[in-house]
Amino acid sequence: MVKAAVLGAGYMGGAITFPLSENGVRINLWGTWLDDEIIDSCARAQHPKLKKKLPESVTLYYSDKLKDAVKDVDMIIIGVASEGFLPVFNRLLDTLEQDPPVFTLTKGFIYSEKGIKRVSEGAEELFRKKFPDRKFLWTSIGGPVKAVELSNRVPSATVFGLNCPEIKQKIRFFSTGYYRVFTSDDVAGVELSSAFKNVYSIALGICDGLYRNRPSELNHNLRAFLFNQSVREMAFLAEMAGGKRETVFDFAGVGDLHVTSSSGRNREFGEYIGMGVKPDNAYENMLKDGEIAEGYSGLKHGIGWVNQLRDNRLKELPLLKMLCSIVCLNHDAGAELERYIEKIGY
Amino acid sequence: MVKAAVLGAGYMGGAITFPLSENGVRINLWGTWLDDEIIDSCARAQHPKLKKKLPESVTLYYSDKLKDAVKDVDMIIIGVASEGFLPVFNRLLDTLEQDPPVFTLTKGFIYSEKGIKRVSEGAEELFRKKFPDRKFLWTSIGGPVKAVELSNRVPSATVFGLNCPEIKQKIRFFSTGYYRVFTSDDVAGVELSSAFKNVYSIALGICDGLYRNRPSELNHNLRAFLFNQSVREMAFLAEMAGGKRETVFDFAGVGDLHVTSSSGRNREFGEYIGMGVKPDNAYENMLKDGEIAEGYSGLKHGIGWVNQLRDNRLKELPLLKMLCSIVCLNHDAGAELERYIEKIGY
Repeated sequence: MVKAAVLGAGYMGGAITFPLSENGVRINLWGTWLDDEIIDSCARAQHPKLKKKLPESVTLYYSDKLKDAVKDVDMIIIGVASEGFLPVFNRLLDTLEQDPPVFTLTKGFIYSEKGIKRVSEGAEELFRKKFPDRKFLWTSIGGPVKAVELSNRVPSATVFGLNCPEIKQKIRFFSTGYYRVFTSDDVAGVELSSAFKNVYSIALGICDGLYRNRPSELNHNLRAFLFNQSVREMAFLAEMAGGKRETVFDFAGVGDLHVTSSSGRNREFGEYIGMGVKPDNAYENMLKDGEIAEGYSGLKHGIGWVNQLRDNRLKELPLLKMLCSIVCLNHDAGAELERYIEKIGY
Repeated sequence: MVKAAVLGAGYMGGAITFPLSENGVRINLWGTWLDDEIIDSCARAQHPKLKKKLPESVTLYYSDKLKDAVKDVDMIIIGVASEGFLPVFNRLLDTLEQDPPVFTLTKGFIYSEKGIKRVSEGAEELFRKKFPDRKFLWTSIGGPVKAVELSNRVPSATVFGLNCPEIKQKIRFFSTGYYRVFTSDDVAGVELSSAFKNVYSIALGICDGLYRNRPSELNHNLRAFLFNQSVREMAFLAEMAGGKRETVFDFAGVGDLHVTSSSGRNREFGEYIGMGVKPDNAYENMLKDGEIAEGYSGLKHGIGWVNQLRDNRLKELPLLKMLCSIVCLNHDAGAELERYIEKIGY
């Protein structure tokens, strides 16, 4: 019997238990110190965000039981928000006795002593410091998968960015008829795409918010314009991170941006801004409802990450620059969008 | 004073007169033998499809006045549907006394003596036969531009695929603050993208039709899955045509597919099929309302074009194959979609 620990009991942590359980995996679902109420609710009735009872093969663990949750497991899946990644990963390293492969659903950047890093870079650094002789087996999971749909078995494509081909053996425990797994050896590309698709979805949301009173048949050219420019810039960013442009043009980038810009929290966050709500207020209002717009911190960290690279490359990223002006510097969204549009072209 | 002839008075033929006129171009708008009523309506009041009065600098020409319409013009813009391209282009060649650059908004394939060809290939063949000593200056226009939005000055990105760099001088007559022109030297890639985005939008429409009763929050993963697979296959098709993959990943492909799969006639045609209407009936019903789902013939010609290539490459195009089963062979849409999904992945 294969055993997996899922760390983080939010949307994706909950949803990934469905395909795993259908492949006969026994799952320990561990909630962070922010997830106690979720674990309570799951124990009592159903997952409160997914509005679904979790599969039978899931055992629930409260935040003080990490050691029990990861004991003797064959795989670890991390499903916490990027803000929570470092504290969870550090605790995991203090607890771990074996070195099972880690699959992470966490997207974005973390701060380390040496600056802003991608999650996988930061994780590898910590891992190697602690366990210089052990093998770091790492998979970044990306692609267009909204958790609620996954838990409802809507056909979905996902891409697993593997740092080592031997992890492929484990994919059969994830893949089902409705959860179609594609693989890539470009961890950096998958990770960059996953992080920045949240950021660029804010731009599509801003557009929707600004032009919400326009008849719907007049709202496609500009949305497509911004969608496409987002893909262009994500490809540029992936290359700067040492990843491949083609990774962005596939499920991790184009596909995931398609989902994230059609629905979800980052698009919604942008929509509020387009409607005239100050970014900080929009973020806080959503947080009060228990919803985190990860693209907000993703944008700030992403800009920081770009700035710490050699040369200032921000000038080659006009849409990211526009987002920075609107979201970080509170400039007027309509005026900035207009300025951006008139600037690019032949 | 720069003069341009626009051939075809439908959606795009009408819409392109707006940016041209704002750049001071005098426009002769010629309607084909199918456009007489449109020309009547434009002369009387407004463009009947765009629901807008055309700019002052437009002079209208009925179908029997092609010679007058193209006399002494500096540019010719072709905006007819792909079905009408050959008869219009042949008449043009019989009439033309000079060799101005041709910009075409027509997408898709045409039949020639030597088989199915891209529009630009077919046009070049005819041109060179007639005028072996003249220069063939050709631009295929692609990108995410719905005509109604263009005529309403919604910011839009377009890509001009040029067969010769000197045509760049003419772009300033098209480009405005809201009509942003990008350029490419990959005519084949732009053209293939433009043709196949109509075809693949049918798949997104089928998905919408099949799952129209599903709550909207459960309809994003699969749409993104199909969108992304469409991009994958269009990149493969562009390569087979001697074009570049990157062209597909940009405005001509990703961007245009975004618009076309969000709204428009090809998506609508697919939606009817997903709802159980037989493809032929769906096409005919739309035609009665004066709407042509170009993706229908695009699919048939596209499949024919793939089949005439060396080796049978259709097996590497599972989504196109699925479309062929559903749309050309009347197979059950739900069953075919399910089969397709279970077939692809790691």
